[in-house]
Amino acid sequence: MNSYISTSWKEELERLIQGKSLVFLLADSNLPDSYSRDIIKVCNMETKTHLFKIKGGEEIKTHHHLILIYNELDRVGADRESVCICLGGGTISDLGGFAASTYKRGIDLVILPTTVVGMVDAAIGGKNGINVQSKVGILKNQIGTFYQPKLTGIDLKWLGSLPTDEVKSGWGEMLKHALLTGGPHLEQFKNAEPNLASLTPLIIDSGNIKEGIVRRDVKEKGERAILNLGHTIGHAIESLDLDSSHGSKSKHGIAIAWGIVFTLEVSVMKMGFNDALAKELIKWIVDIIGSREEIWGSDAVWFKMCKDKKNTNGNVKDVLLRNPGDADWGFTWEREEFTILWEQFRERYELTSF
Amino acid sequence: MNSYISTSWKEELERLIQGKSLVFLLADSNLPDSYSRDIIKVCNMETKTHLFKIKGGEEIKTHHHLILIYNELDRVGADRESVCICLGGGTISDLGGFAASTYKRGIDLVILPTTVVGMVDAAIGGKNGINVQSKVGILKNQIGTFYQPKLTGIDLKWLGSLPTDEVKSGWGEMLKHALLTGGPHLEQFKNAEPNLASLTPLIIDSGNIKEGIVRRDVKEKGERAILNLGHTIGHAIESLDLDSSHGSKSKHGIAIAWGIVFTLEVSVMKMGFNDALAKELIKWIVDIIGSREEIWGSDAVWFKMCKDKKNTNGNVKDVLLRNPGDADWGFTWEREEFTILWEQFRERYELTSF
Repeated sequence: MNSYISTSWKEELERLIQGKSLVFLLADSNLPDSYSRDIIKVCNMETKTHLFKIKGGEEIKTHHHLILIYNELDRVGADRESVCICLGGGTISDLGGFAASTYKRGIDLVILPTTVVGMVDAAIGGKNGINVQSKVGILKNQIGTFYQPKLTGIDLKWLGSLPTDEVKSGWGEMLKHALLTGGPHLEQFKNAEPNLASLTPLIIDSGNIKEGIVRRDVKEKGERAILNLGHTIGHAIESLDLDSSHGSKSKHGIAIAWGIVFTLEVSVMKMGFNDALAKELIKWIVDIIGSREEIWGSDAVWFKMCKDKKNTNGNVKDVLLRNPGDADWGFTWEREEFTILWEQFRERYELTSF
Repeated sequence: MNSYISTSWKEELERLIQGKSLVFLLADSNLPDSYSRDIIKVCNMETKTHLFKIKGGEEIKTHHHLILIYNELDRVGADRESVCICLGGGTISDLGGFAASTYKRGIDLVILPTTVVGMVDAAIGGKNGINVQSKVGILKNQIGTFYQPKLTGIDLKWLGSLPTDEVKSGWGEMLKHALLTGGPHLEQFKNAEPNLASLTPLIIDSGNIKEGIVRRDVKEKGERAILNLGHTIGHAIESLDLDSSHGSKSKHGIAIAWGIVFTLEVSVMKMGFNDALAKELIKWIVDIIGSREEIWGSDAVWFKMCKDKKNTNGNVKDVLLRNPGDADWGFTWEREEFTILWEQFRERYELTSF
């Protein structure tokens, strides 16, 4: 793995594009123009730069949008020595990263995340992906590659225009990293409010927690699976939200936070996680994410869990915690038990306010 | 690179699928049913096997067909521990290999080629790919990944049902390997007729020539580029044929053979390739591939050459020969010179019979 996170992105980018044939800048059109202008200024000193704007959001992660990007890469004459820069949140880097990894069988990729989720999660680790419509719903993030960016450039000033709900979504992913690492980082994180001013000093640390785990297991053969903490349930919720035409649509990090609440409950039963600590953490989390109008039923959630990428040989796998900083990625769900526990959980948290 | 070519595919396959969750067999529906039955018999002893048939051909290398395969993989419950087997020619392994490399970010791939082109070229080296329709034509093989199969299983009996024009197409790729390696293999190959009985004893050697080159340069950073001998022009011809609704449609290997004829002419001028030997080789090749009713004009060919994957920094690259067995992958075309040489070539070979 030769990617790395850098806060001095301008210098790194200048070095990286030396001698390259062209730069293709895929930018979220929701962002202020000044962000892409800054980048073009840096790139144009070395290499001709083409800007392609697309409105970020889960709905762009389709083959249709992939083909739009391929066409544009072709139109501007991108070749194997070209560089693709993704400027935006996770949906831009998921789509653009997949495009870069498959155009001419792979061109250099740079990710410049502009959301908290991007900085601490989506832009790190080389996973990209799109969603595919199937006869029975949407296959969420099931199609993609492992493709390491040459550079992940972090500039905290890009968070300036981030909507509040996006910051909260980032908080959910940071929560996961805090629970996976425990210790002083978790304590600092518990003391932080879910707003930008409070979270910003913790973002680089949070990204580095993920980077360390990925570096030890790039292709997710073992330890990397702990990064799925809260994601088995979280992805199921997101995927059901996406299929549905009405009701709550949780932001990624909020869906993950719900997954973590459920995981903490199960971890007490299955892994001997300290009960009092779990209760304290759950109260803290639910206070922040608020209640959900409607929680999907166990059958629907189970159906989605069965599609999870981590599953092997038809077993539904999940990640549990023994302690903060001590995760176990070998847990296998039995449907009957899941149904009972999920329906209890649903009763506890649906339509209630805290 | 951990793939390898094996003629004892049954034993290797049995070993490979041990403990796997399921086998997804993507088979060309043009093939006799007995081929897939044989494979299912081997697999079913170890692992549940799902057969998915699709009619092979360049026209299946699309996103539409990719999505069909993703849906079917999802429907049968394929997970990361599943194995995808491609049984068919190059279009089946190009499409199926890309699907396997992107479904859940990569599942194990086995290629069982049933054509000469498959056995000596498409199934070796881990390149896959699809075509994408752009506003100005088809982007041929521009979208794909490098993804090594765990096994390439060769069974010469699968060639039994191969149409004559497919055998001849395979001859074109074998010609390339023979020129790249020179020596006794080239002599043997020159003495072989372009029919199955005559070519079969040379197929394993021809595949191994490619395998050796790829092993030394998996991601095509250098030497692997020599495998593009005849392909700069060959792909341009194929791509123009594909865009066009009328006229000759060359099989892959025949288009490559035309590319090689042109390359030999240019190699004499640019690389001091022996003139008499070039003339002898060209006569031999053209006697076999026959004439072409219409040869595309230099502007159209140049336009396609500009899209070649090998190009860097806007330079149109090509592979030339100093001698049989001694290729140079650093040649850069100037448009003006190409135009002159191509139009001379066109005049010489268009509408003529030999």
